[in-house]
Amino acid sequence: MTEHAIIPETGKPRVVIVGGGFAGLELAKKLCSAAVQVVLIDKQNFHTFQPLLYQVATAALEAESIVYPFRKMFDEQDNFYFRLAEVQSVDTLQQVVFTSIGLFRYDYLIIATGATTNFYGNDKIKEKAISIKTIEDALSLRNTILYNFEKALQTDDQEQLNSLMDYVIVGGGPTGVEIAGALSELKKHVFPKDYKELDFVNMDIHLVQSGQELLKGMSQKASAEALHSLEKYGVKVWLNSKVKYYDGRTVLLDTGERLHSHTLIWAAGVTGSLIDGLNKECVVSGNRIKVDEYNRVVGYENVFAVGDIAAMITPEHPHGHPMMAQPAMQQGKLLAKNLKNHLKGKKMSPFKYRDQGSMATIGRNRAVADLKVFGKELRYTGLIAWLIWMVIHLLSIIGFRNKTIVLLNWMFSYFSYDKGMRLIIGEKRENLSTESVAEKAVVN
Amino acid sequence: MTEHAIIPETGKPRVVIVGGGFAGLELAKKLCSAAVQVVLIDKQNFHTFQPLLYQVATAALEAESIVYPFRKMFDEQDNFYFRLAEVQSVDTLQQVVFTSIGLFRYDYLIIATGATTNFYGNDKIKEKAISIKTIEDALSLRNTILYNFEKALQTDDQEQLNSLMDYVIVGGGPTGVEIAGALSELKKHVFPKDYKELDFVNMDIHLVQSGQELLKGMSQKASAEALHSLEKYGVKVWLNSKVKYYDGRTVLLDTGERLHSHTLIWAAGVTGSLIDGLNKECVVSGNRIKVDEYNRVVGYENVFAVGDIAAMITPEHPHGHPMMAQPAMQQGKLLAKNLKNHLKGKKMSPFKYRDQGSMATIGRNRAVADLKVFGKELRYTGLIAWLIWMVIHLLSIIGFRNKTIVLLNWMFSYFSYDKGMRLIIGEKRENLSTESVAEKAVVN
Repeated sequence: MTEHAIIPETGKPRVVIVGGGFAGLELAKKLCSAAVQVVLIDKQNFHTFQPLLYQVATAALEAESIVYPFRKMFDEQDNFYFRLAEVQSVDTLQQVVFTSIGLFRYDYLIIATGATTNFYGNDKIKEKAISIKTIEDALSLRNTILYNFEKALQTDDQEQLNSLMDYVIVGGGPTGVEIAGALSELKKHVFPKDYKELDFVNMDIHLVQSGQELLKGMSQKASAEALHSLEKYGVKVWLNSKVKYYDGRTVLLDTGERLHSHTLIWAAGVTGSLIDGLNKECVVSGNRIKVDEYNRVVGYENVFAVGDIAAMITPEHPHGHPMMAQPAMQQGKLLAKNLKNHLKGKKMSPFKYRDQGSMATIGRNRAVADLKVFGKELRYTGLIAWLIWMVIHLLSIIGFRNKTIVLLNWMFSYFSYDKGMRLIIGEKRENLSTESVAEKAVVN
Repeated sequence: MTEHAIIPETGKPRVVIVGGGFAGLELAKKLCSAAVQVVLIDKQNFHTFQPLLYQVATAALEAESIVYPFRKMFDEQDNFYFRLAEVQSVDTLQQVVFTSIGLFRYDYLIIATGATTNFYGNDKIKEKAISIKTIEDALSLRNTILYNFEKALQTDDQEQLNSLMDYVIVGGGPTGVEIAGALSELKKHVFPKDYKELDFVNMDIHLVQSGQELLKGMSQKASAEALHSLEKYGVKVWLNSKVKYYDGRTVLLDTGERLHSHTLIWAAGVTGSLIDGLNKECVVSGNRIKVDEYNRVVGYENVFAVGDIAAMITPEHPHGHPMMAQPAMQQGKLLAKNLKNHLKGKKMSPFKYRDQGSMATIGRNRAVADLKVFGKELRYTGLIAWLIWMVIHLLSIIGFRNKTIVLLNWMFSYFSYDKGMRLIIGEKRENLSTESVAEKAVVN
């Protein structure tokens, strides 16, 4: 018998939101004036601004500037309750959610669990690669990159040296492109000053993309510009290639190519973070939950899903909406309105996605932006796209302090060509253990 | 046979500095123009500004704003080499230092290993308490404090609730006083808004001091003001008391008093971080290394010690200089000059400590400062001491970016009565495991 989590009954219908990403957060905020009790459950005590994780991973920003404590965010919202817990499963008959701190009764359940890295069933890669979905991932990658160079100084084995200095990034979406660009900037402006004893001609940055273009889903212009810019920066882009195998040292591509790297950064795709206990029928491809036009989970009355985890199948989006911040926030916002209407016995409104476009930054003064403004499609590259990217991201970061700190860091970096957060604090990966080196020696 | 660490021979005498604290850093910097090869070995890749660790621990500052990467600091210094390694021992006959990455040959060895927390041989306390000597300690304390309140929300056992909400700080020096003050500010202004369901009348902050006054070594006025202010803030100060025992739940004082706390913060003293391999004769009380007036380790020609680890016995300082930033920096600076003179065949100058005073902050608008300016003793308390404290700390933090970020954070905190870094990222302590609760139930 699982104990009930301790949470006061306020006499109002209880809306339990699982996950405080863009969708869950927007929903919780917009329910501020609703006659409900809002309970947000998350395994972190803060919201993460995921679009800038790559900057934490590449020593440009401190973790603290892109995350925001939930409790601080909702200080003034009286109907809001937060619980730090991991959700294990749900029982929709009993209307309870099972978590690491006990069970929660709900009147309305909102699943906003988002997505996690998809290794497509390859456990070996999962074990050895680094992904960038959480703040811990980003910090771990930062530590690993810096530690690699410290170790590189202590080897005279050329193969090991290459393996420590080279990077393989898998996935040509925004994250992969942004990490590749940031690494090439570090290679050009920062690392040669830090590690004068190393020859950075030896540092190769590989970007592996399964499709025939980068930034799939963006315009032809954006894809071409991303490819052109990265190649200009010295990034080796492998199109139409997939990773078949990785043992912590050698990356084998399906084209037969072998790349040697101590560090494989995996940004090749995501899969929905499902909760046990829902009908199998509502789970569709990509581990997403099938919802109707009101974000109601198919087959349930009072269970909803929003954001990356929700697959709302429409003629325009036969696989659901893109797994990005925009649809998540729009769904969260509309669901708040719909729940309020529903409680008043009014009709709910169907969701309609307003695509405002997408962007990716590549490096100093270089980005690509496909915008939709009043139905008009605008495509920018270069400096103007980079400025648009910065302004939109600054506006989107939560909190005045965070906006200020991020802006300052960007200004310092821009004028000094430097990235200040080259700190090894906490966990790092060490694929190249003495063991594997020894093993290799035996094999040779 | 240990392998040599890979480090180029430059043909110049090699000065190996172990530890990049205040003393080692100052020495390395001031050797910029010397005809030597400077090799700095540290187990972190950054310098830590220890005086502000307590602000990281109490969610006022991000870790990144008070640390600074060594490599970035020495970007422009051509004779400087950094190695990330842990020093294990020294062989003064062979003139080598053994480390985790191999051995280092030296011509001059400078021990600047500083000090570590002193648990006075009490292993049980060492295991259960949290100290604040490193950035990892500070982050771990921050995580633990925040996690305690999250857990407090999930208990209806009054004793466990108290244990989670109460804090025992051991040590009435600057760190203990500053942590107690910062916690009482969080209790007053921040936590009640974050955890509306908890009653903060239940949050007790205890400060245990072995002597009969706080801030020993500072003026009577400063000690009295610290005691008065902390008591006004609601901190329970236990003078003339020592901790005898702690099991993760109950703190037993030698006065017979029992305090219940999940979290024991240990700031009760430090002990020198010795390196194996030196003559036993040169180790004096407090595990410090006896040095002459040139900071040369007694009995050696080319081994020096500076900073907290060095005990320079003088009539004014029969136990060595205070283990603080000032003597460390002054010794580092002079040793650089002396080494340069020594290499030119000139005479070395004896060290003379210029005590510029000491300070501690207690809370908003409140600090104590005993200053020595041109031989004149000035004693300040309250707002003016607090402003002096801020200005001096801001000037001492390394790097323009860090100064700016710290100043901004302080301004945000001052005007909003808030501390923004209430984030649980990484490690935390969980003394109150289910096991110990069960065990307790059996005992009762």
